[in-house]
Formats: sequence, C-alpha cells, structure tokens
Amino acid sequence: MATITGVRVEDVRFPTSVTADGSDAMNKDADYSAAYVVLETDATDPGADPAGSGAPLGGYGLTFTIGRGNDIVAEAARQQAAALVGRDVDEIAADMGALYRDLTADSQLRWLGPEKGVVHLSLAAVLNAVWDLVARRAGKPLWRLLVDMTPEELVDVADLHYLSDALTREEALAILRERAGTRQERLDHLERTGYPVYTTSAGWLGYSDDKLRRLCQEAVDAGYQHVKLKVGANLAEDVRRLTIAREVLGPDRNLMIDANQVWDVPQAIEWMRALAPFDPLWIEEPTSPDDILGHAAVRRAVAPIGVATGEHCHNRVMFKQLMQAEAIDYCQLDTGRLASINEIVAVLLLAAKFGVPVCPHAGGVGLCEMVQHVSVLDYVAIGGDLTGRVTEYVDHLHEHFTDPCVVADRGAGTAYVLPALPGYSTQMYEESIDRFRFPQGTYWAGRTSVGDAPVRDTSEHVPH
Amino acid sequence: MATITGVRVEDVRFPTSVTADGSDAMNKDADYSAAYVVLETDATDPGADPAGSGAPLGGYGLTFTIGRGNDIVAEAARQQAAALVGRDVDEIAADMGALYRDLTADSQLRWLGPEKGVVHLSLAAVLNAVWDLVARRAGKPLWRLLVDMTPEELVDVADLHYLSDALTREEALAILRERAGTRQERLDHLERTGYPVYTTSAGWLGYSDDKLRRLCQEAVDAGYQHVKLKVGANLAEDVRRLTIAREVLGPDRNLMIDANQVWDVPQAIEWMRALAPFDPLWIEEPTSPDDILGHAAVRRAVAPIGVATGEHCHNRVMFKQLMQAEAIDYCQLDTGRLASINEIVAVLLLAAKFGVPVCPHAGGVGLCEMVQHVSVLDYVAIGGDLTGRVTEYVDHLHEHFTDPCVVADRGAGTAYVLPALPGYSTQMYEESIDRFRFPQGTYWAGRTSVGDAPVRDTSEHVPH
Repeated sequence: MATITGVRVEDVRFPTSVTADGSDAMNKDADYSAAYVVLETDATDPGADPAGSGAPLGGYGLTFTIGRGNDIVAEAARQQAAALVGRDVDEIAADMGALYRDLTADSQLRWLGPEKGVVHLSLAAVLNAVWDLVARRAGKPLWRLLVDMTPEELVDVADLHYLSDALTREEALAILRERAGTRQERLDHLERTGYPVYTTSAGWLGYSDDKLRRLCQEAVDAGYQHVKLKVGANLAEDVRRLTIAREVLGPDRNLMIDANQVWDVPQAIEWMRALAPFDPLWIEEPTSPDDILGHAAVRRAVAPIGVATGEHCHNRVMFKQLMQAEAIDYCQLDTGRLASINEIVAVLLLAAKFGVPVCPHAGGVGLCEMVQHVSVLDYVAIGGDLTGRVTEYVDHLHEHFTDPCVVADRGAGTAYVLPALPGYSTQMYEESIDRFRFPQGTYWAGRTSVGDAPVRDTSEHVPH
Repeated sequence: MATITGVRVEDVRFPTSVTADGSDAMNKDADYSAAYVVLETDATDPGADPAGSGAPLGGYGLTFTIGRGNDIVAEAARQQAAALVGRDVDEIAADMGALYRDLTADSQLRWLGPEKGVVHLSLAAVLNAVWDLVARRAGKPLWRLLVDMTPEELVDVADLHYLSDALTREEALAILRERAGTRQERLDHLERTGYPVYTTSAGWLGYSDDKLRRLCQEAVDAGYQHVKLKVGANLAEDVRRLTIAREVLGPDRNLMIDANQVWDVPQAIEWMRALAPFDPLWIEEPTSPDDILGHAAVRRAVAPIGVATGEHCHNRVMFKQLMQAEAIDYCQLDTGRLASINEIVAVLLLAAKFGVPVCPHAGGVGLCEMVQHVSVLDYVAIGGDLTGRVTEYVDHLHEHFTDPCVVADRGAGTAYVLPALPGYSTQMYEESIDRFRFPQGTYWAGRTSVGDAPVRDTSEHVPH
C-alpha cells in the first residue's frame, strides 16, 4: 500500500537569457524554467540507492516554460494535483487511463483551454509526476514499464477521444499487435546503439559567427550527423550563418533549420526559396503552430525540403489534422506540452498509422530526460522504425537532474543511452531547486524586480 | 493628459451551478465568473453622470470563465496589465495597434499559448479594459468610436499577422472602403430596429421538460424568431426535448442546437441524422473546437443543416482555417476569448471576405454587454449585411453591470438596443464585486472549501 500524502509544486527558473542560450527569432530572452511537481507518499522507494535505504517514494514531473508566467503554470498544477492527495498509487497504476480521465474531467478548468495553454502545460507536469511515481513504484525506467505493457494495456492508457475519424481503437490495437512479436529485437538493437540524436546546441541565433563555426566543428568532431540552426530574423544573416554551417558540415551531414513561427505563409515560402541552396533536411515551425493548412501549403511549396513542427502543437487533435492534411514530414511532439504518456501514446499511434516519423522536441529543462523514454517506446512498441528518426538533444541544464540523460557514440552515431534507473528521469536535485526557486532561491533573492533581465554572469551555473 | 495610475484585477464568481443555468453536455456545474480588470487614471470621466461631477476616469474589462481557475486567469491579467501603469491614455488611443503589439510581444508569456488558453483569455480582459477606457475618454460608446474610424484606422487596429495567405492588408482595406460610403444608412437602420438576437435561456440541459416548455412559450410570446437548445448527453432525451421545443415553436421559427463539443466526428454525423427531422438551423460545437477538418467533414455530411462554432475558437488563425476549409456556416466569435477588438476586427474582415455570417457567442458574464458593440461594428463598417445574422442573448447576470444591455422588439423582432453610454458596457457595480469576489466576498465567505459546490439557495441573486 502506498498513498499519495502531499503535493509540492515549485517555480524553478534558470537565468539562461544572460548567455543567449535558447535565443531564436521569436524568443530572444528565454529564462529556461520548470513548473516542477513533487508527489509525496507514505511508502519507501524500492529502487532507492543504496538499496533498502528506506528512502521515501516520490513522483517528480515537470513542464517547461521560458520564464515569466511559470508561476501561473505552477499554480494551475497545484490545483490539478490536489485531487491526487489520498489516492492509492497501486490503484492509480492499475488504470492510468482512468486517472487521466479523472484529471481532465474538471469542466471548470477545461474551459480555460480546452486542452491547451496553461491548463494543459500544468496537466502535463502533474501527469509526468504520476508516471514517474508509477514507474518508480514498479522499480522500472518508464520506457521499460511501457514496453512491458500488452497492446490492450497500452491502448487503454491512450487518450483516443476526438480521434476516431482518423484512428479507431481497433486500428490502434492492430498497430500495437503487429509490433508486439518483434519488440525484443528492436529493444536489443537500442540497448546496443542507443537512440539516435541531433544537436541544437550549435545554432542559437544570439551566437557570434565564430562561436557558431566552433560549435558546428565540435558537433562534427563529436560524431553528430545532424545539426540544427535557428533562422528567420534576417535573411542576409541566415545566408551567412548557413554558409558557415554548410562549410563545416560538408555536403553529406544533415542541416536542419528552425524559424520558430516568425513567418506568414507566403513569407515562409519566399524565404525558403532563398535558403533552399543550403539543402536543409527540414524547415521547422515555419509559421503559426495553429496553422495546419498553412503548414500544408508551405510543405507543398518547399518540397523536397521537409516540414517539421510540434513543440507548440498543443494536443492530439491538432496532430491528427497535421497528418490528415499531409502538412508535416516530421512530428516533433513535446513531452511538456502534450498531457504526458496518455496523449503521447495517442500521437505515436497516429504517426504510425499515417507513416510520419516522430522526432520529438527536446532541450529546455528536462525535456531531453523525458524524450529518451518516449523514443524508446515509439521504436520498440509503436512506430517500429528508425528510418528518418532522430531525437533532439541539447546539452543544457542536465546537471540539475539526479538521473541525467547520457549521449554517446557506440558506432552508429551519437545516441541517447537507455536510462537504467526507475522512473521518468525527471527528479531534480533539491540543491538546484533551493538555488533557482523563483523568486526566493539564493540565485534570485538578490534581484529586486520580478521582470528584470538577469545581470549577473551565470556561466558557472549554466553550461554551454 | 490622462495617465494610467493603477491596475486592479478581481476574481468574481456567481454561484450559477445551483440553478442549472448554463448547464450543457460538457459543462454541468458552471459557476459563471469574470476575471475583471480595472484601469485607474488620474483624469476625470467626461461622460460621468451627472455631467461635470468630476468622477474619475477608469477602464473596465473582463473575460468569462466558469469557475475554478478564474484566479489563474486573473493573475495572468495582473502580470500583463502591469505594463500599462504610467502610460498616457491619449497616446494609447492614438495607436491601439501598437499597444496590442506591445502587450503581445512578451515572448516569455507567449510561450504559454501561444495566443491561446489562459494567457489569451487574460489578454482579452486587459485589452477589453483598455478599449473601454479609450471609448470613455472619447465620450463615446465603443461601437461609435469604431464606426467613426476611417478604413485605414480600422485596419491599423486589426491584428493581421499570420493571415496574409487568406487576407492581405490591401484586401482588408478594400472591404472597409467599399462599405465606408454607406455606413450611415446601415447605422440609421440599427438605431431604429436594434441588432437581431436569439435566446438560449430556454434550453439548458439541466431544466425539466415543464420548464423547457414554459420557457420556449415565453420566448415565442416575447417575439423571438430563434431559440437554442443544448443537446448531446443522451439521444432519447434530445429527441424528447426537441419534440417539445418544435411543438411550441411551430414549423417556421428557427431552432438551433448546441452539443458543446461532446462528440467525435463520426458520432456527430450519426447523432445529427437522428435529430435532422427537427429541422435545426444549425448544430453548434459538434466536436473538438480545435478540429477544423472535423467540422468540415461534419458540415459536408449534415447539410443543409448548418455548422456553427467559435466560442472556444481561440484565435484568428483558427478562424482563418475554419473559413479556408469551408468548415462553418456561422462564425460565433467570442469577445472574452479573442484578444479584444484588435483580433475581432481581423476575424470580422476574414468573415466578410469568405462570406460567412458572424453570429457572436454571448451569455456568461458580460458577453452580451460586449457583443452588441461588435455586431453593430460588423454590420455598419465590415460585413454590411444582416442576412443570416443573429447574435446570442441570454438573460443572466445583467443586473451586475452599470450599463446593462437592453433587448426590445421594435417591430423587426427582438433586438439589442444600441448602447448609448460611453465605453464597452463592461463596468460592474462595486457592490456586486464585494459580494461575489472569490473567495472573500460576502456571498462566498461563509463557505469553507474553494472546490465546494455552493449549497445555499441563490434564487434571489441569480435571475433565470
């Protein structure tokens, strides 16, 4: 028996705007932040280190924001998570689909979306904490808990509401059953090679040309086959920066570009004509993330360059339409924006049915820690294919996590090494929270105004 | 000179769940609420009554929610409105497009949408207060301020970002210029007849059959040509209730039905086959408000029954696509969900270009007060047509407003009488706020738990 006895939600903000890490054409002053949910229980953690130490069992989950408003998301998470106090962990674990429906059944909070914006981000944080808790209780990494589920169990977890015109429950089951017999061989492959990644660390818009060239070279030296750059603020600068990147990468490595939603549709098409000579693999977020038909128009116009989007795609209904409209070549779902594994499984199933490769968005705070679990689940149990798949990796802020993601090149390119510890890899060090809790943490406490841009050098705290 | 000196944001909740006012298939326990923004200035109100009384000039705006989470919206509004303190009202009034861009330029808050959910609802509340302030400063009802603008001024107000594949600035100007010469004759018509309305007061799902029959008869007796009922919870009950309604309305009056998003697409089509014999004018919100392609599929299947949606359509990019995809017969924009007049003008222009009648959503708290201004603007300066247009009216909660909307039948059916006082009709009585402020107001203070359903009889406070 394990009962959830309490909920704690933290507003944690890292001062990344100082170094221009994370800068792009839309988001010039991001302070990478997490609305971080802790579920406390009265049980001990079976996977605690050292074994048998009697450390308390907890669940840790988060969603990612870029600064102001993180307190608003945290407050929404606090209200949603309150319903969990007093619930039995094993009962929850036995029917995560039911828990999902319970948490989404609050019609008063639903009105504030529905299924989008703050209340959906906060729901992701809460459900991520529950999935972490359930995996810890089972003593398994979350990916393992999921690939150990039967097709029926997995489809019961998925939120298929509003999808039946594109994917019925029977079709979903058929996809899962078709993959079930060969799960182990794909898992063996991933255990050997890891899950392939690409890097965005090189290409933030705020970096100088010299820094861009050096970081591209470091990516090549580290074995990356894919590098992504931000574009969209100034065409002449984009041409100059892509020239540098292509010089360093050579003709065969993949170069992706990301406009972070700055263009109207006709402008996206025109701008991409100018950048086509650099042979990008994809253009990411060419326009409003809500513009399904706009993405489809861009895709038709810029082919064979691919169109990618998803980090701001707010729910499965939008992904359904992006696929129905043949608007995307790559599905970049986000583990902090979709309502955790329940909605993610639904999107992975849609992608499998429509034959769209899933290349999850990551970076930020904790997103890399989460996507590795999702990509393993996708390859082993749902999508069943690595062709055209590559998951984002950014080398930021991992030192704040107790089980940080690890990338390594084991002969098949740089890849996420499969997480081994129980849970969703989402627990942060309490020391990090005490330092970067906003606005009371020791880092922030010296600053007088909430809206101020940080002025202190943070290079010692924030890695490149 | 008039400077904004302070901002006050109130969480006001009315206990409407007690009487089942506002109940539908999705929202069974709505407590109609307002995140209410007050902008204070150091100037006196030129339109204050009595004239020359020296009453302070203020701006009053709101967005509508249905209870829990209203505090979250209020907090977001507080953060967004803080930037207004110290600004000069006349400078703001001279370029409302620039103010809109200022308020939407905060990329950290934008991340929480973008342009959807809590941060967009709160932005609507803030901008509604600014528009109210600007109209009061000019001593005009807001509709008058807007129809007095030149085509160039109106298009400068509109947010056309992300729309240029469907509507260019030049096309928008051409629409406005085409209507400009005949504005006065349409205004004369509205001054005589008012703007036509329909009523939803009769058809909430929680009402008994006897109450439904009585309210339908009262609507007929009051001169309504349109009545709307909620459907979607139970097919047999829908058939029974529509039978009653059609009996009372007769074959010639219009009956609209509203499913409040409960169906998947195939289910919507099947259910509507069963309800088609009752000859509904439209089916409203048949499925997820995000499902543009789903609405298009339903529309193709249920014609000649119309498809209506919009109260949860979160921004102009979604409306653009609903029109591009020929997914709707009626555009039901919401004055608390779109980012005020700036985004509403853009949607009205899109609707004019695509030939879609605009029948705004209202009801809730203060929505009727606002939509009357929008519908006058649409007919006089943008859409230029009343054919197929009818704006929602619900007789709830108007007694809390200092300039409540008025409906009357002046020979052309029940209609909104044009507001005469300066502003957006959005000011609430301080006595109402003191009573229904959550959770400290005198009505709520006796209740111990935030999440509790109200138990006290509120019939004296909440009209039917």
